[in-house]
Amino acid sequence: MTILIVGLGLIGGSMGLALRDRHRVIGYDSRPEHARRAVERGMVHAIVSPEPTRDIDVIALCIPVDAIRRELPVILDRISPHVTVIDTGSTKRRICDAVRHHAKRNRFVACHPIAGTEFSGPDAAEQRLFQDRVCLVVESELSDIGAVEMAEEVWKDCGMSIERMPAGEHDRSLALASHLPHAIAFALAQTVGGHDGIDRVSGSGLAGAIRLARSSPHTWSAILSENSIGIVEAIDAFTQHLAEMKRRIQSGDSQSIAEFIQDSNFIMQTIGRS
Amino acid sequence: MTILIVGLGLIGGSMGLALRDRHRVIGYDSRPEHARRAVERGMVHAIVSPEPTRDIDVIALCIPVDAIRRELPVILDRISPHVTVIDTGSTKRRICDAVRHHAKRNRFVACHPIAGTEFSGPDAAEQRLFQDRVCLVVESELSDIGAVEMAEEVWKDCGMSIERMPAGEHDRSLALASHLPHAIAFALAQTVGGHDGIDRVSGSGLAGAIRLARSSPHTWSAILSENSIGIVEAIDAFTQHLAEMKRRIQSGDSQSIAEFIQDSNFIMQTIGRS
Repeated sequence: MTILIVGLGLIGGSMGLALRDRHRVIGYDSRPEHARRAVERGMVHAIVSPEPTRDIDVIALCIPVDAIRRELPVILDRISPHVTVIDTGSTKRRICDAVRHHAKRNRFVACHPIAGTEFSGPDAAEQRLFQDRVCLVVESELSDIGAVEMAEEVWKDCGMSIERMPAGEHDRSLALASHLPHAIAFALAQTVGGHDGIDRVSGSGLAGAIRLARSSPHTWSAILSENSIGIVEAIDAFTQHLAEMKRRIQSGDSQSIAEFIQDSNFIMQTIGRS
Repeated sequence: MTILIVGLGLIGGSMGLALRDRHRVIGYDSRPEHARRAVERGMVHAIVSPEPTRDIDVIALCIPVDAIRRELPVILDRISPHVTVIDTGSTKRRICDAVRHHAKRNRFVACHPIAGTEFSGPDAAEQRLFQDRVCLVVESELSDIGAVEMAEEVWKDCGMSIERMPAGEHDRSLALASHLPHAIAFALAQTVGGHDGIDRVSGSGLAGAIRLARSSPHTWSAILSENSIGIVEAIDAFTQHLAEMKRRIQSGDSQSIAEFIQDSNFIMQTIGRS
């Protein structure tokens, strides 16, 4: 098939690298230097204009979530009826709402491949980024069955398995599993950043805890804005748990601190193994 | 030289593995199964009683910080005058205070090797845990010069370089660089732990952010208790930064969120590279 990738950064570039040997991959990026790097790294077979043309089977939107929400209805307006449009946004509810009543809603398949790193741009792309990861497909009951099959073929060719879920559940779960850890890392970087000599005393613990603070401002300001309700709830829940930890530390009762840590150890037996 | 390691877990076991080819390493652990595993893994040449004997040159205390604070004065009471005692605790102020007026204070060298993982016990020990890392030596002006040289030789033979700093500065800096990230990980694990299906949607971001929540309850309840003032200050500072992030998310102004993230990106250029 022919796949048009719109946005050739970490996600779009990695899709190109994963798909180029099996499909015709063409790309577009509004930044000329990203398009140039995508060609140099062999992520796409050609750079094209963003205008949908007859020979395209799938359009994959790999741009920030606010841009997906704005561009998606325009693209659906223009496509011929056989084209499948997929997105890759880390939020889903507002994107799905933006096209809920669009005449060609059934040509859109709302996707979220759970894969990424703290780096961004075409130089961050990795051929195996999606390998053995899960792609969440949301509100697939509003999509044409053939379009869903086409989308799933693309993700399987990237090495992913598929899970389906409602958009609201997606955004609440991702607020906890991804957006909250990013907000924490941004705040932790600023907490330690003002202190001289922190680098002299820091080890792998801090480095791991703030790794996500390198993430792209453009990508992540859009995600945190789009899922503001979910992320604020997640921050509030986390703040209460941290306040409870603080209360136990202030009480001087090391047994109650140990119990808090034991509870956390227990939770770690079931999550976060990936 | 002959080195007695008291406590054969992650830190003591890793010291044994790093030093056994160059020195005579003998060990003690109050848990018989840890002592047995230390022998099986070749971490020590022999298991001995914890009683200091004539042929020992260095005693290394690799036990939780509250146990170091209690045991250190007793050990100093009993050693012959040529023995050097070093510790490995992640807090320093209360340990140093506990022996400030001890007649043999000058035989103690307060040390904190900045190395570790989220795992514990002798099976977590790694021969190269300390390689190319920094060992902080605190209040060395209260130690005999020969004792400091002996301590530094041990750490250099483990592959470490040495930095000196005051105990108060150590505890304030470590509250930010290590104790706060642990408290955050414990609280984050509990925040996400109550939600069904979080594992279905989580990727490497969450896994990295909560890795430290696997850390030992015994080791870490002691550290958080011993450095309670520093860690409460660090939690308060972090909570303010996170509240500011939340305020910007609630305002819906994605430009101000992007600026917050840019500030965090900037800080990441100088810290957390290890």
